[in-house]
Amino acid sequence: MVSALAPGGARAVARCDELGIAPYSDLPDSLYRGYLTPAHRAALDRVGAWMVEAGMRVRIDPAANLIGRYEATAPDAPALIIASHIDSVRDGGRYDGPLGIMLGIEAVAALQGRRLPFAIEVIAFGDEEGSRFPAAMLTSRAVAGALDASALDMVDAHGVSVAEALAEMGLDVAKYLTAARAPGTTLAYLEAHIEQGPLLEAEGIAVGTVTGIAAQLRYEITVAGTAGHAGTTSMPLRRDALAGAAEMILAVETIAGAAASDLVATVGRIEASPGAANVIPGSVTFTLDVRAGDAARRDEAAADILETIRVIAGKDTPRPSPFPFPYPSSFPREGGAPGLQAIPFVAPGPPLSRGNGARDDVANRNLDVAITLIHDLPASPCDPALMDLLDAATAAAGQPIRRLVSGAGHDAMVMAALCPTAMLFIRCRGGISHNPAEHVDPADAQIALAVMSGFIDRLGATIDPA
Amino acid sequence: MVSALAPGGARAVARCDELGIAPYSDLPDSLYRGYLTPAHRAALDRVGAWMVEAGMRVRIDPAANLIGRYEATAPDAPALIIASHIDSVRDGGRYDGPLGIMLGIEAVAALQGRRLPFAIEVIAFGDEEGSRFPAAMLTSRAVAGALDASALDMVDAHGVSVAEALAEMGLDVAKYLTAARAPGTTLAYLEAHIEQGPLLEAEGIAVGTVTGIAAQLRYEITVAGTAGHAGTTSMPLRRDALAGAAEMILAVETIAGAAASDLVATVGRIEASPGAANVIPGSVTFTLDVRAGDAARRDEAAADILETIRVIAGKDTPRPSPFPFPYPSSFPREGGAPGLQAIPFVAPGPPLSRGNGARDDVANRNLDVAITLIHDLPASPCDPALMDLLDAATAAAGQPIRRLVSGAGHDAMVMAALCPTAMLFIRCRGGISHNPAEHVDPADAQIALAVMSGFIDRLGATIDPA
Repeated sequence: MVSALAPGGARAVARCDELGIAPYSDLPDSLYRGYLTPAHRAALDRVGAWMVEAGMRVRIDPAANLIGRYEATAPDAPALIIASHIDSVRDGGRYDGPLGIMLGIEAVAALQGRRLPFAIEVIAFGDEEGSRFPAAMLTSRAVAGALDASALDMVDAHGVSVAEALAEMGLDVAKYLTAARAPGTTLAYLEAHIEQGPLLEAEGIAVGTVTGIAAQLRYEITVAGTAGHAGTTSMPLRRDALAGAAEMILAVETIAGAAASDLVATVGRIEASPGAANVIPGSVTFTLDVRAGDAARRDEAAADILETIRVIAGKDTPRPSPFPFPYPSSFPREGGAPGLQAIPFVAPGPPLSRGNGARDDVANRNLDVAITLIHDLPASPCDPALMDLLDAATAAAGQPIRRLVSGAGHDAMVMAALCPTAMLFIRCRGGISHNPAEHVDPADAQIALAVMSGFIDRLGATIDPA
Repeated sequence: MVSALAPGGARAVARCDELGIAPYSDLPDSLYRGYLTPAHRAALDRVGAWMVEAGMRVRIDPAANLIGRYEATAPDAPALIIASHIDSVRDGGRYDGPLGIMLGIEAVAALQGRRLPFAIEVIAFGDEEGSRFPAAMLTSRAVAGALDASALDMVDAHGVSVAEALAEMGLDVAKYLTAARAPGTTLAYLEAHIEQGPLLEAEGIAVGTVTGIAAQLRYEITVAGTAGHAGTTSMPLRRDALAGAAEMILAVETIAGAAASDLVATVGRIEASPGAANVIPGSVTFTLDVRAGDAARRDEAAADILETIRVIAGKDTPRPSPFPFPYPSSFPREGGAPGLQAIPFVAPGPPLSRGNGARDDVANRNLDVAITLIHDLPASPCDPALMDLLDAATAAAGQPIRRLVSGAGHDAMVMAALCPTAMLFIRCRGGISHNPAEHVDPADAQIALAVMSGFIDRLGATIDPA
């Protein structure tokens, strides 16, 4: 089987490359393919032709999704949807999205007319990135029946509404929600996508079975101390918000690293105020992003991080130190200086949260901390039985089995509302994505295609063991 | 003696308060007294009158400094200069500068006509803050003969030149440098100033003898790692510039705190790039400000900090870890991933720089670090014999003796080029300065006045032991 597929992976990559320039890009010198733009329209024509060539019947649904259907042995059989998105961010890469579509087309082509107990529908979703309007995954939400009509009241940066943009493609916004699939018409969902992370490459593995889309928590954390003159405020008298934040950021790294799992935690944005070289920062605000394959581990890590942040701040939960105050000093630490709040005396005892990143050798920082939850996205687990099929197909293709969580969102998380989902990640160079340097080795695409074909065969066997 | 001075301290404070509003401020609702502004002009008239009232002969020098001279027993005797600055930053406090001038006037008034073997000149320096033109301490530099004429080619925010501003006061810029004192005409320099820091208040002490103006080093440090998706880049594969910077910032605090001296080190400004909540920071730039009473200790601490920063970056000086790589992993750490630079193997050995703030439990961060020296200001030590006189006067006033370094710059550091200098710091509430909340207790001003009077008596005794 694999030898028959030999050219497919390379062709899928080459077709992504072809789509990377005008007329399939809305920009002359780099790739940008927005939802419902001329480049989108051009791409649908080209990709639709490839679908027809592979033996599919092609249509565009009311949400401007391109759908190629390859019938089963019987008419009107439920379908395996193989899909990804055709839109691209500005100055994006050529494989984020399109590669999954191209590999779906190749998987159908590789059947060479052989029929299965289920239909296959390859879908090129019109919008996953939020490439034109200020909302993402519009089109998979429409297909999954998970879109509220009010989401269509948006306009793009030029004031063009979704309705106007659809009309230019000959579509009617009033019919948008009819893109929803009836329950029972869809057997399963498979999405192949570049990893957009460095894990597979670091391990020297071509493809991985995705266990789910990570659950995500995002916070904004503000640490408040006292601004002061960098030259005139001695070290023991400082309430340095940035030094406190630094300890917190290290704790985030330590706790997430210690989990030795798919848990990741990131401080990506930080602002220190007033922000002058000769002033001790009185206030620091930073973001905290925590993700894991399941919400329980995510929540446990987030709780550990937030508790440690409170301990480091030392305001509500004074941290006993096994050591004397580290700065030899003859003056009293309690009361006294206005602006320096009294530090409650705490009898020496076992340190709180030792080993979670809070340092025991720093005195109570006496900082105020405010934690705001920005968002809480649940995990979207992939289907265990489908994961097993992917693993089996991976092994059959002679590849090591590697399961990994997706830290980023994908259409699969939306489609999980409709049917069981599976995702196959493909190694990309340096983990780089959303960048013209995005790169996939055609040999890896070929391995992915072999795994997808094996998955299709095995899915058929679960339905029709003959 | 002290009882005779009783009203002086309170009057000095009250006069500062009087100068805190129009016409002595250039702003209607807050204090701003710029060099060569109408408020400056008004203040010179008012302060000059107080000088005359205290028995001094008054003049304005070519740099617009107001000088009140109280003659010695003999004419043309060398003078003790008691001075501070009359200009104020925008939205400033009432005591930063003027209090030292008012106390000088009170010290002369307290002599009640008694002559000394040296003259006293009380000077209200026109510019210390850089309150109008983009350079500071213009006027003490002129008096000390330490000003280059090219410094006068400046204009203010409205394009008004120093020459034009001087002309409005009837002064000629061509004569500016003749404000310089001839060597030998000045016996010593004494400046009383609010501390602008919290140390005296924290210790419950009214005044302190300044040992000198701190030597200062300032750096800009850029840490470069690899930006990456916060959701898709596992913890062990990160080169997180912000986590590295956080460890460095903690090391700055640890090293400066461990010095348990007048050494201070501050990271006041930080910028992380690209600065999005869902992106691992690829680059971080922060400032480092290091000050100490003498350059040797400052330099030693700075060298320790910079070495630790390099160790934390781990690029040039791989840090051996006594522990295995902390994130259990089956994949190779060497070579492999493009974008992830190979980590040189280092045989386990004694940790580098242990205990200086670098954590041994974090693997080599493999970050690039660039360190730029922004400026290097030498220390300006006060005169040891004059410090002894201040200490003796402090003890005689019934106050504890406390020596402390000035982390901020003052006219005294400029005047050190002309003669031996002494500074007396006065406690200010909360260490707050450059702020309308700046506050000095009249009782503390009274103590400062008693110390200054004692200093004057003792200085006379060193010249004329009779």
